[in-house]
Amino acid sequence: MAVIKRLNPLDWTFLAAETRESMMHVGALMPFTPPADAPPDLFRRLMDEIRAEAKAYPPWNLKLRHPGLLAHPLQSWVEDEHFDVEYHIRRSALPSPGDERELGILVSRLHSHSIDFHRPPWEVHFIEGLEGGRFAMYFKVHHALVDGYTGIRLLSRSLSDDAGDRDKPMFFALKPPAREAKPAGGAPTLEHLLGLVRQQAGTTRNITRALSHTLSRRRGALVAPMQAPRSILNSKISRNRRFATQQFGVERLKKVAHRHGGTLNDLVLALCGGALRRLLAELGALPAQPLTAMLPVNIRPKDDPGGGNAVGAILASLGTDIADPVERFRAIVASTREAKEQLQGMTAAGIMQYSSLLMAPMLLSQIPGAVGRVRPAFNLVVSNVPGPNKPLYFRGCRMDAYYPLSIPFHGYGLNITVVSYIDTLNFGFIGCRDTVPHLQRLAVYSRDALEELEQAGA
Amino acid sequence: MAVIKRLNPLDWTFLAAETRESMMHVGALMPFTPPADAPPDLFRRLMDEIRAEAKAYPPWNLKLRHPGLLAHPLQSWVEDEHFDVEYHIRRSALPSPGDERELGILVSRLHSHSIDFHRPPWEVHFIEGLEGGRFAMYFKVHHALVDGYTGIRLLSRSLSDDAGDRDKPMFFALKPPAREAKPAGGAPTLEHLLGLVRQQAGTTRNITRALSHTLSRRRGALVAPMQAPRSILNSKISRNRRFATQQFGVERLKKVAHRHGGTLNDLVLALCGGALRRLLAELGALPAQPLTAMLPVNIRPKDDPGGGNAVGAILASLGTDIADPVERFRAIVASTREAKEQLQGMTAAGIMQYSSLLMAPMLLSQIPGAVGRVRPAFNLVVSNVPGPNKPLYFRGCRMDAYYPLSIPFHGYGLNITVVSYIDTLNFGFIGCRDTVPHLQRLAVYSRDALEELEQAGA
Repeated sequence: MAVIKRLNPLDWTFLAAETRESMMHVGALMPFTPPADAPPDLFRRLMDEIRAEAKAYPPWNLKLRHPGLLAHPLQSWVEDEHFDVEYHIRRSALPSPGDERELGILVSRLHSHSIDFHRPPWEVHFIEGLEGGRFAMYFKVHHALVDGYTGIRLLSRSLSDDAGDRDKPMFFALKPPAREAKPAGGAPTLEHLLGLVRQQAGTTRNITRALSHTLSRRRGALVAPMQAPRSILNSKISRNRRFATQQFGVERLKKVAHRHGGTLNDLVLALCGGALRRLLAELGALPAQPLTAMLPVNIRPKDDPGGGNAVGAILASLGTDIADPVERFRAIVASTREAKEQLQGMTAAGIMQYSSLLMAPMLLSQIPGAVGRVRPAFNLVVSNVPGPNKPLYFRGCRMDAYYPLSIPFHGYGLNITVVSYIDTLNFGFIGCRDTVPHLQRLAVYSRDALEELEQAGA
Repeated sequence: MAVIKRLNPLDWTFLAAETRESMMHVGALMPFTPPADAPPDLFRRLMDEIRAEAKAYPPWNLKLRHPGLLAHPLQSWVEDEHFDVEYHIRRSALPSPGDERELGILVSRLHSHSIDFHRPPWEVHFIEGLEGGRFAMYFKVHHALVDGYTGIRLLSRSLSDDAGDRDKPMFFALKPPAREAKPAGGAPTLEHLLGLVRQQAGTTRNITRALSHTLSRRRGALVAPMQAPRSILNSKISRNRRFATQQFGVERLKKVAHRHGGTLNDLVLALCGGALRRLLAELGALPAQPLTAMLPVNIRPKDDPGGGNAVGAILASLGTDIADPVERFRAIVASTREAKEQLQGMTAAGIMQYSSLLMAPMLLSQIPGAVGRVRPAFNLVVSNVPGPNKPLYFRGCRMDAYYPLSIPFHGYGLNITVVSYIDTLNFGFIGCRDTVPHLQRLAVYSRDALEELEQAGA
């Protein structure tokens, strides 16, 4: 077993944080519509084709050298010499009627199972039995191997923008791409941000010191870290997940956002805020103070004349204390505008330092026993990430949507990640089944929140 | 959270032994055929009816007080005040064509997932999509809550021997039965035997001492503990399981067994031996010495004039070194006969002491690092347990078979348990996916082994 590579400190962190309850894998759910001329045994043919791939390339053939001790100080990746394609590529089916609800239940369940660290830590499930002869692909990978954003980029190499292209190799059977130039500033993902924060903050001791420093000089107008109210979202999580999805057309969203004087991103927050207000009220758990969300954003720092971007974190109110949908939307717009202005007044180094401070409590919460003692800096993460902008096909089957599954953490039991695909926004609501009961209602309620705002200005 | 009961030492042992790889849950797979007049939405109706059950009774509503530390010295059972029936009763479906192979794959996968110890440690999966409009029930329970034998007894309280009885409550919604008189000697199950051995042996130190005592005075003719050859079955296991099933008619088996001068139980061993010889030869891993199996058996001790039974363990050769099927069968018959004679010559206390010694290496293997150092006392466990002797129905649906799933241990990666149902024997082959590759072939090869013996004497 030749060591292929050592783990970098961030990847190592994701292994060290893994427990039975707090699992550090990410995922994606992609429903597909087969072409009109699809043979009746399409699924079996696809499986046979895929499992016939002879070889897996890095990173897909890498497994841990010390699977029994994840936090081993010399942990590294080695090649799996017995790569077992049948293990990694699986078939599943939905019980009748194969609707979105049943799909959500199955994916929730698949995402609740921990990864086997004795093998390359990823799985793909082909799920048949969706209404209308459709199928779905659920992809799961441990964050220590690749982050969600990179995983998707690699996975999409199996997809084609040509519906006629029916024999692209599976992603794991493709040679790794030549090192790509990273886009300046990177994508505004939670994962990217966690990486930067880790680099910035260094050890836990440094984080603690920096955090207490901030608290002593916090400012007034902004949503400051310690203003987040306590809520059911911010307790210790258990092992099981719930997952729900929602898809909206971008044009429809933009129209509503602009009419009420905000951006598309503001509207994303407003749909989350409206849905959360209703769910928490139903559960008798709505805090008097507004919930606050942390958003990774791309910001142009004041010391970068070249117009480069930096990834930073802002805190925004979700206006969950406000009953009127339009007023709630305006409160959100005001809070994001102020947060962004503040960030734009900083240097690149300042943005990073500020973001680190915002995220420090999240990192601290992962230390055993800390949840409940460390007050949450924010109530949840809402991420809005750019995705593919043209239709993609898997061997002639059209990808209908692309729903991300991010990581619930101890103290942060709900995550909402949004990915754009062609002219839609795709919401993935993922949370702890116990601390966020009835999470699946958020998908329905976010649609209702949109309709409310549509009707309010019509 | 009122403590309902402390764990007894044996139950505690099963918790303490639980790891990511070595999981101590047992299960059962039961395929059903719906009645001819079943409505098309039968499965959904059944689920709705079952999930409408208002309340769960002990032991089904009990969860661990200390789920984060399974081996907690004061571990106990407490009532789950938020019993979530949707969590415990699940729906699944088979991918097309819904044959035995797909069923085996799904159940292997379900059995590979560890139990959530933050809830009552059991699950029932209704699996639809079996060929011919059939469905299956897969039941899973942690051995610390109930042993497999008891679990099935309780589960079968939901079943009826009357096809017209369509509203028996689900097992978890039935009040616990009044304490039943235990049959003398108990059932010859591995679990029963483990319990007795634990009582007898006490601490690990005692087991070690007793074991070294035996080794110094072992006898000649019998299969003695240390004669088991090293084999791929006897290494450290990993997390994933494979499960395969086979069903034979008892009359057919008896005819073959008697023609060749053995018992039904001898034939069970011969089918296992024939199948294992072929699989191991294909894998290039057939030991030169015969594999030996440990069997829990009911024996009449010589000091019990009342004809009571004791449960003991015998070792039998599986004749895997012999190419000819009839000769192999005769070797097995000779070895079980001698083993039983030896046991019958002992007092009840002697039987227990001997059985403890046989099983000691199995218990020792569960100590971290011991596998590979402690030589296996035997290569695998083969259990043959009496089951229901008349047809059972679940709300009008006839149970077609009853397949048990026992526990693979470190050092004992394959378990074969056989349960009788009406006029059939139902084989459950369960093993570690990695240490016993292609385990599912054993189901096919056991049938071939039967045909060989049928033709040999015809």
